[in-house]
Amino acid sequence: MASEIAQPAPDDDESSSIGLVQTQFIKLFEPPHVLTLEGGQRLGPVTVAYETYGELTPAKDNAIFVCHALTGDAHVAGWHSAESRKPGWWDGLVGPGKALDTNKYFIICANVLGGCQGTTGPSCRNPATGQPYGLRFPFITVGDIVEVHAALVRKLGIETLLGLVGGSLGGMQVLDWVARYPKMVHAAVCLASSAKLSAQGIAFNAVGRRAITADPDFKDGDYYGEDASKYGDVGPRFGLSLARMIAHITYLSEASIERKFGRDLQHSDHLEYNLQKETEFKIESYLHYQGKRFIERFDANSYLYLTRAMDYFDLAARHGSLQEALGKTNARFLITSYHTDWLFPSIQSREIVKALVEARRHVTYLELESVFGHDSFLIEIKQLEELVTPLLAETYRRHRTE
Amino acid sequence: MASEIAQPAPDDDESSSIGLVQTQFIKLFEPPHVLTLEGGQRLGPVTVAYETYGELTPAKDNAIFVCHALTGDAHVAGWHSAESRKPGWWDGLVGPGKALDTNKYFIICANVLGGCQGTTGPSCRNPATGQPYGLRFPFITVGDIVEVHAALVRKLGIETLLGLVGGSLGGMQVLDWVARYPKMVHAAVCLASSAKLSAQGIAFNAVGRRAITADPDFKDGDYYGEDASKYGDVGPRFGLSLARMIAHITYLSEASIERKFGRDLQHSDHLEYNLQKETEFKIESYLHYQGKRFIERFDANSYLYLTRAMDYFDLAARHGSLQEALGKTNARFLITSYHTDWLFPSIQSREIVKALVEARRHVTYLELESVFGHDSFLIEIKQLEELVTPLLAETYRRHRTE
Repeated sequence: MASEIAQPAPDDDESSSIGLVQTQFIKLFEPPHVLTLEGGQRLGPVTVAYETYGELTPAKDNAIFVCHALTGDAHVAGWHSAESRKPGWWDGLVGPGKALDTNKYFIICANVLGGCQGTTGPSCRNPATGQPYGLRFPFITVGDIVEVHAALVRKLGIETLLGLVGGSLGGMQVLDWVARYPKMVHAAVCLASSAKLSAQGIAFNAVGRRAITADPDFKDGDYYGEDASKYGDVGPRFGLSLARMIAHITYLSEASIERKFGRDLQHSDHLEYNLQKETEFKIESYLHYQGKRFIERFDANSYLYLTRAMDYFDLAARHGSLQEALGKTNARFLITSYHTDWLFPSIQSREIVKALVEARRHVTYLELESVFGHDSFLIEIKQLEELVTPLLAETYRRHRTE
Repeated sequence: MASEIAQPAPDDDESSSIGLVQTQFIKLFEPPHVLTLEGGQRLGPVTVAYETYGELTPAKDNAIFVCHALTGDAHVAGWHSAESRKPGWWDGLVGPGKALDTNKYFIICANVLGGCQGTTGPSCRNPATGQPYGLRFPFITVGDIVEVHAALVRKLGIETLLGLVGGSLGGMQVLDWVARYPKMVHAAVCLASSAKLSAQGIAFNAVGRRAITADPDFKDGDYYGEDASKYGDVGPRFGLSLARMIAHITYLSEASIERKFGRDLQHSDHLEYNLQKETEFKIESYLHYQGKRFIERFDANSYLYLTRAMDYFDLAARHGSLQEALGKTNARFLITSYHTDWLFPSIQSREIVKALVEARRHVTYLELESVFGHDSFLIEIKQLEELVTPLLAETYRRHRTE
């Protein structure tokens, strides 16, 4: 999620927020109609936490599904309580009059399978045993995540999505979805993502997982207390925060860290020559803070499962080639990368674009200027708006059922 | 140290190796003439482990000091025993007929202060207590490292160095040395380095240290057994190997990892869909191996002290400006950076070059092509040779005492 290294100023104009929203829950894949996962295991029932904003037209032709990134959740826009008014993670993009215009479109976002924000994942109790799954949760893939989301969409009575939008792991879901269900999507927006995780990406995920599993409080994943939803109080807190700190560095660009923190000190104007001071530099203090905040809201086991799902993602390997994977859809693609994003560099987006062009599909690609590295897609809302708004308008014009 | 992702083939031509060499030890800063460290603490005696190759001329005008990087040691070239024949870490550059030609020059390299390869550091016993220092070892800086090396050089009877050569942390020592003793060096070679560690560099060091200090076997640094030199058997093994794995990723370029490992699997031709398999991808197996090998040869406390010394390094802050720091020397500089090195990107080398040019000093700068990222300076020997050989020859011609 966004680093908050440069959050856009909160929008005081209430008319531009969708306002009070609520997470909903639905049970899918109830036995005997359980989900067969890509790895062969079977899972069901699956509870899905999701939010919707705007109105679905009677023709059900205005639905847009938002796929969240690694540590996101279903809460894209608006706020959950009048008191806190903490906006959803992509509130700048989703709302009345915004790019994903809730006055025109019906927006859906769901927490991913294996996550920890309401959808079935390792911190949930296995109905068969009454105990939290822990590492007994089955192995999941990006494809499995997509299967659950597609089932949710169909359950809502929607056959075809006007749009499918996601960045990073969310972008992987967009690609996988279009490959699985090429006729289900009219416009596909894939931001700062890739058709396969790079070796460097696997490497960073590996060290993050290692930090978690090496923490003595990990206890082979059985660290939950009485209330497994309160994972923030127990478990491998050091390991998970360290994993987050490592990942967080990869989400920022060298230039943005340098500009924001440089070599500034946190509490003093002089060096203290004291090895025990762990957060003497501002950048250290910032990373520690990010790690600490993260463990309050995220489950370590979910982090293991979801990073591994990212590692496994390789669209060409699964479908024979990228052209095979992406050649069957008529969806209009918007692909963006960010020139300071070194975790998902532009070369990876260009591979997708190349495959789409070779398969004679409709694609617009832009390498966008931004200092914010991988996080850019969460921060540079104005840029995105200028691209997404006309794409959705044009697609809606073409596919609208009058 | 080199990643061994692409070690040059061992040189079978024995005539090009300096052959059997031995580490020597010397005691400096014996009380009452102890060393006052930059942080204000006092330390002495200091044992220094060093090696020399070649012959010092009677005029003592042919000495070249090699500054090693973060986890290096004094053993630059040759081998320590006829059986193992494991060459020193820069054997390709140092030897008879090589760039640092032991037939012509007298080469010196010493393990750094705070290290764990024979020079006084946290794993050594404090003579005052008989116990290993651990975290009671005083805080040290790059400047303190340089002071010890300069004292060693003077103790060897050498007033002026023909050359000073180092990469990464070694390059920082080169810069600091020239700033401290501008008249002591005739040629300064600074590779893949920087006049100050970037915020991103501090960030990666911070997570590495965090991995070590969060390991329950760290025990506030007092993890040594009866024989403190056997730190490989005790201490924060998980934490230190994790720190190394993180750092190792930063030493490689995205392109080199992709080319060497890509998404290849380690043991199988198919995915196993098993979260417990930690080293399914080759890159994971490689990183784990690197971590494991590292803890056999490096002390966790040294890692803490030396990475913090890097964090603190900021030549301009210490001297007012880079021009101030580097403007007093007549040394001929060779600065190189590597276009795939994202840990010490070229922009940082250019800052040094800019300061030297503005101060009207003699400098040659090249951004070299190499796929190997930060490790390039340890791997691309041929490139270096072509630059270093004429620089040293010309400098020697100018400053030779006939």
